[in-house]
Order: sequence, then C-alpha cells, then structure tokens
Amino acid sequence: MNRDKHISSAFDRDLETIQAMVVKMGGMVEAAITDASSALDTRDEDLADDVRRRDKAIDLMEVQINEDAARLIALRAPTATDLRMVLAVIKISASLERVGDYAKNMAKRTEVLAQMPQIEGAGIALRRMSQAVNKMLQDALDSYIRRDAELAHDVRQRDLEVDQMYNALFREFLTHMMEDPRNITPCMHLHFIAKNVERMGDHATSIAEQVIYLVTGELPDEARPKSNSVPVTAPAGGM
Amino acid sequence: MNRDKHISSAFDRDLETIQAMVVKMGGMVEAAITDASSALDTRDEDLADDVRRRDKAIDLMEVQINEDAARLIALRAPTATDLRMVLAVIKISASLERVGDYAKNMAKRTEVLAQMPQIEGAGIALRRMSQAVNKMLQDALDSYIRRDAELAHDVRQRDLEVDQMYNALFREFLTHMMEDPRNITPCMHLHFIAKNVERMGDHATSIAEQVIYLVTGELPDEARPKSNSVPVTAPAGGM
Repeated sequence: MNRDKHISSAFDRDLETIQAMVVKMGGMVEAAITDASSALDTRDEDLADDVRRRDKAIDLMEVQINEDAARLIALRAPTATDLRMVLAVIKISASLERVGDYAKNMAKRTEVLAQMPQIEGAGIALRRMSQAVNKMLQDALDSYIRRDAELAHDVRQRDLEVDQMYNALFREFLTHMMEDPRNITPCMHLHFIAKNVERMGDHATSIAEQVIYLVTGELPDEARPKSNSVPVTAPAGGM
Repeated sequence: MNRDKHISSAFDRDLETIQAMVVKMGGMVEAAITDASSALDTRDEDLADDVRRRDKAIDLMEVQINEDAARLIALRAPTATDLRMVLAVIKISASLERVGDYAKNMAKRTEVLAQMPQIEGAGIALRRMSQAVNKMLQDALDSYIRRDAELAHDVRQRDLEVDQMYNALFREFLTHMMEDPRNITPCMHLHFIAKNVERMGDHATSIAEQVIYLVTGELPDEARPKSNSVPVTAPAGGM
C-alpha cells in the first residue's frame, strides 16, 4: 500500500534486495529452530552441533543487513514511511538474530541433556511448541513483506497459545522434579529451553508489532503484552 | 573523534538531544534494576509494584527515541559515521527497553516469591549481581557518550564475572532443590531471575559492542561471546 505513494524505483529495488536478505535470514533461523528441536527430541548430537555452527552465518546476515540498510539510507535519503520501512528491517533482523541465538542455546543444552535421564514427553512437547513458534515467525515475516496488518494481528494472538504451552510445561517440570530429585537437573535445562522457545514467540510477536506500526502508524494497545509472563500455579506441595 | 570530520552543527545539536534522552532512559532503567533487586531482597511488594508501573514510561522513551532518530535521519540525511551514530541510538534504546522488561519481570516474581519459603543468601547474591550489571550498563552508556572504546572493552570483560556469578548461583539453587523439595518452586523463580540478570549483562555488553563498532569500525572478535552460557556442572547427585 505504501507502494502507491511515490518513491524512486531505485529505492524500491534496493529495499527489495534487503528484504530478500531478511527473508533468507528468516529461512535460516526457521531451519535452526526445526533442527534444534528435532535434535533435542531425538538426542541427535551431530545435528545439534550443526545448528551451533550455522549460527555464525545468521549473525553475519544481521551485520550485512544493517550495513546495507545504512547504505540505503545514506544513498537514497528516504523519509517518512520509506525510512520507517528501512528502520523496521534493522529491528526485524535484530529479532531474528536473537531467535537464532535461542536455537543455538537449545542445541547446546541438547548435548548436556543427552547425558541425563530422559523426561517423558518433554521432547515432543518442546517440538510442538517450536513448530507453533516457527509458524508465527514465518507469518510475521510474511506480514512484513506483504504489509499485512491483519496477519500480523493474528501472529500476536497466537503468542497466547505459546504462552499457555509454556505454562503447562512449567507445571509438568515442577511435578517431575518433586517426584524424583534425579529429574531436577534435566528439568532445569528443559525448563530453560521452554522459556527460550516462549521468548522466540515474543520476538515473532515483536516483528508483528513492527508491521502493525508500519501499516497503521500505531503500536498495538499494549506492546508485548505477555512477554516475561510468570506462571504462578504450582502443583500441590510446590510451596 | 567523529566530531573532527565535518557535520552541520544542527545535526550535532539534534543528536545530542536524542543522546540526552538515551542517558535519561538509562537512568530510569538503572533505577528499575536497583529497586527491583532491593524489593526482591527485602520482600518489599510495594516497591516491586512501583517498578512494574514505571516500566511503561521506559517503553514510551524507546518509542520517542526511535521517532526522534527517524526524524533526525529524514531531516538531516546524515551519512557514514553520523548515520551509524543515529542507528546505534536506536539499538541502544532497544537494549535498554529489554533490560527494563527484565527488571519488571524481577518485580513480578518478587510478588510471587514473597509467598514462598525464603532461600538463604539468594536475595543478597542477586542484589550483588544486579549491582555489577548496573555498573556495566552505566559504563556502557558512558562509553557511548564519550565514544570510549577502551571503556567499552572493559564492560565486555566484566560480563565474564557476571556469568560466573550466575553459574555459582545455578549450582547453589540445584543444591537447595535437592535438599528439600519445598525449595523447588522458589528456586525455579530465583533461577529465572538470576538468568534475567545475566541477560541484562548481555545487553550491556551488546551496547558496549555497538560502541566498539562505532569507534573502530569493527565488531569485536566474537560478538556476544558468552551469552546463553550453559552451566553443566551439577552438584553430586545431580544426575
């Protein structure tokens, strides 16, 4: 829709090149999430190691996008909406980089967890949660490319479900820990992974909020409404 | 040092206004950290509640800084180093906003923890860790204002100490949890707080890395070298 307004086609071309890099970076991050959660579930240390190594390339993509965005601003001196679109690209790539870090972290903990007793159902649950987050991330990027505020709002809504998955897992881990002290250490790691996946969802949400801001000119009512949520329900005996 | 190059004084003036807002935002975030860790240690729910309420103003500062930075770019069309300085302001304010969120989260958990058995030494240890992070944050902002790469390198180094404090606490919490299942729920929350404080340190480090990039034109060897560190040492019986 911004397309109607004006804009030199040179700016458009440059922005599209950068957006293509963001999409590519998004694909790398999504692959990292998929592989990290699969490695965790199947205790595949080689795959986990591969995810860790690939994070370097994701970090470099962010640096490249930042540099290209700065060059575009300097060269074309965009204003108003055009400028905001370029600045949004910088924020989006920063979010993607953080999500990549979380995937790398999941891979690191996989190698630690592989030495510990397995917690029933945790691998599958985390994989399901990761899939939900991956879809959010895809749709958030898609909403950016298409300037689709409706899709962005939908992504925001779905963050609630991810938060609920996290809260359910939190309670489950507490139960396992109280049942058997040998479960404490693996559950501490699994809990961290669950929290990191939830944080990935927060980043997808924050990308969606950028899109809403770009398209409507206003941030949603309460930005990032559910990040850092604190589950307070503990199983009986948890006090 | 960038001051030597050229630059309309109008740009300088505008940038200084924005930088003053960043410094003010930094002060608000530092106060949030201090109050949140003090509230946690003394179980002061009123103070915790105050920290939670003040986070809204921190969020608004980020929005304001972003808008002013975008306006500055549109108005003065800065290039090269000037442009990078403005873009750095955007990234720094994003980091500060995240740190503010972590402080708010600490305050939220304080209210939950106030209902649970106290874990000896945890409040003091977290307060000490928060102080170290606060000093890192102050120095990181100071290094930005003074374009002081040496100070920025020093901030980066100190992140190691914060990571060590976190690792020590992680092991301590595991021990408490294994000793008595009633400690599990409070330790889960305290562990999260410790991890969030460690993440605040990562953000201070990332501000310092922005400064190093601005001053030297290069990111440090390995950006964010210690974030998401995984403590693997468990106390005896932890497996």
